[in-house]
Amino acid sequence: MKRLDNPLISPSDVRPLAPGFEVIGTFNAGAARLGQEVLLLVRVAERPASEPGCVAYAAYDPKAGRITTRQLPLDTPGLDARDPRVVCLHGQVYLTSISHVRLARSRDGISFSIGEAAAIAPETTTEEYGVEDPRITRIEGRYVVNYSAIASVGITTVLAQTRDFRSFERLGAGFCPDNKDVAIFPEKIGGRYVAFHRPSSGFSPRPAMWLASSPDLIHWGDHRFLAGPRRGEWDGSRIGCGAPPIKTEKGWLEIYHGADKGGTYCLGCMLLALEDPGRIIARSKEPILRPEAACEKAGFVPNVCFTCGAVELDDGSLVIYYGGADEFVCGVATSVEELLSGLL
Amino acid sequence: MKRLDNPLISPSDVRPLAPGFEVIGTFNAGAARLGQEVLLLVRVAERPASEPGCVAYAAYDPKAGRITTRQLPLDTPGLDARDPRVVCLHGQVYLTSISHVRLARSRDGISFSIGEAAAIAPETTTEEYGVEDPRITRIEGRYVVNYSAIASVGITTVLAQTRDFRSFERLGAGFCPDNKDVAIFPEKIGGRYVAFHRPSSGFSPRPAMWLASSPDLIHWGDHRFLAGPRRGEWDGSRIGCGAPPIKTEKGWLEIYHGADKGGTYCLGCMLLALEDPGRIIARSKEPILRPEAACEKAGFVPNVCFTCGAVELDDGSLVIYYGGADEFVCGVATSVEELLSGLL
Repeated sequence: MKRLDNPLISPSDVRPLAPGFEVIGTFNAGAARLGQEVLLLVRVAERPASEPGCVAYAAYDPKAGRITTRQLPLDTPGLDARDPRVVCLHGQVYLTSISHVRLARSRDGISFSIGEAAAIAPETTTEEYGVEDPRITRIEGRYVVNYSAIASVGITTVLAQTRDFRSFERLGAGFCPDNKDVAIFPEKIGGRYVAFHRPSSGFSPRPAMWLASSPDLIHWGDHRFLAGPRRGEWDGSRIGCGAPPIKTEKGWLEIYHGADKGGTYCLGCMLLALEDPGRIIARSKEPILRPEAACEKAGFVPNVCFTCGAVELDDGSLVIYYGGADEFVCGVATSVEELLSGLL
Repeated sequence: MKRLDNPLISPSDVRPLAPGFEVIGTFNAGAARLGQEVLLLVRVAERPASEPGCVAYAAYDPKAGRITTRQLPLDTPGLDARDPRVVCLHGQVYLTSISHVRLARSRDGISFSIGEAAAIAPETTTEEYGVEDPRITRIEGRYVVNYSAIASVGITTVLAQTRDFRSFERLGAGFCPDNKDVAIFPEKIGGRYVAFHRPSSGFSPRPAMWLASSPDLIHWGDHRFLAGPRRGEWDGSRIGCGAPPIKTEKGWLEIYHGADKGGTYCLGCMLLALEDPGRIIARSKEPILRPEAACEKAGFVPNVCFTCGAVELDDGSLVIYYGGADEFVCGVATSVEELLSGLL
């Protein structure tokens, strides 16, 4: 494992879409190969300026067809603005930033040029507070992109498909609130599409990874619990899928994230049976990557390594792209063999 | 609207399945016609006896293939046993009772004989803490039953099908955690099966009704927000579907439940467009039924009227079966015309 010359992309590399907004995060990028290029779909988080004595939040207004900003006075009764990411008022949660997704292209997987326009921007009621954490799976000749859609009615996960990364066709919300961290397997298993997902439950305080299957990528069912946090371990508080799984001779190799009690997000691996991904063959005892570099330990949310995608380069290396501290796009070079040998 | 001779079924009418358990609730029954009979699938809640100084909870143990009881000392650090329905320990939630589903049969829709055995009992990992709130839809010659499956990993909703109410074939978890209050429409719309559901979101403290569609009853997608609570009204705190919708010339007639800020559960109606059930034609300004009788105002959870099913009798009347105070099966006789005239 060798970190690249990180960060690969920083907020200062990107101009905000909306005037008066500040880009505060470029992170959690989905990754794919298209021809000779490496493409990233980067989550770009923008923050509206707060007026004095206020906390601002932005939301997409479907009627107006644009993003509008609201200022909440800090002395509003019941307002809770302690977490820099969210504002809570009477149990309703608002985000202090709004994310869209932008395309970045590279020949070498290291040096990226970033588009000026959004690839995917909020444009529906269920994307009111932004679109986040895209993951890309190449399957049957096209690319399927999954992202979290944040809204006052909850967090759904939306599927879209593209062939060229210029136009994206939305396939609707495949997973209902609250759900995040969906990634589609790159081929059907037993005649069905398969996905990881990470539903939320009031019954358990420790979010876990589930599997689901689909005949058509639009409708999902046969929801099954796959794996949960391991109490007291590096992934003892919450886990979720990371990159879409990679098919190997030994099984499906999944790079997932886990957080401990203190909120430190690390990456680890799971190996799942090829014919039955509900069967776990191996799981990392220790993280394969933990926050150590400056752009992982300090940023919008300190101590976070979080992946949405990895690609194999022509030289056989595997680059895992990951969000550092909810602020930067970073990368680490490894190989499928290295990850497998650490697991088995 | 005329209440029947309530309660129709009480806990004292039913013997517990498990020795040493006490039946504390017979309520939230799904309803259907089969030949000349009215059938109810009644939720039966049983409670294990607590040892002195302890609170007991029961769970299905998939390895042992039976329900086991655990006693938690009341002085366990971090234990919260204030709510009689649940015990919380370190964020994990346990239920003080465990529910199964039992069949009750009647010729007149009023006087029921109740089976000694379970129709549907917990038998999988995701049914660990019980199966609850069945709803029955007759569609394409068979009956589809949906119920909530409660487990430490969350609340899924499971579909099963039957033709005779003797054997039930599970079709898997169609909706992932946390979800409840799923009811299937009695026919396809636009070539797809359609269902109400009620996902949970940490973003909004007010649970709402959603719609989803399916090609096969197993896989669900195209999740869409339908309607939320109306702040300050009788349904201002949470809403969810009740009985499966009834097709009328004016639209789909849905009897739903709503709770106010104080936790009083009432029933109301919605009328949805036949070709597009996402379009609300009308919604009850006032409840059609509110807790007023003794077996609605006093019981395991006071001030609750909650429905999972209604059937039309041969005389054209519509009997809405509803749970009174999370303890009793009650019924109220009305008609489709009466409900429509109250709405339009």
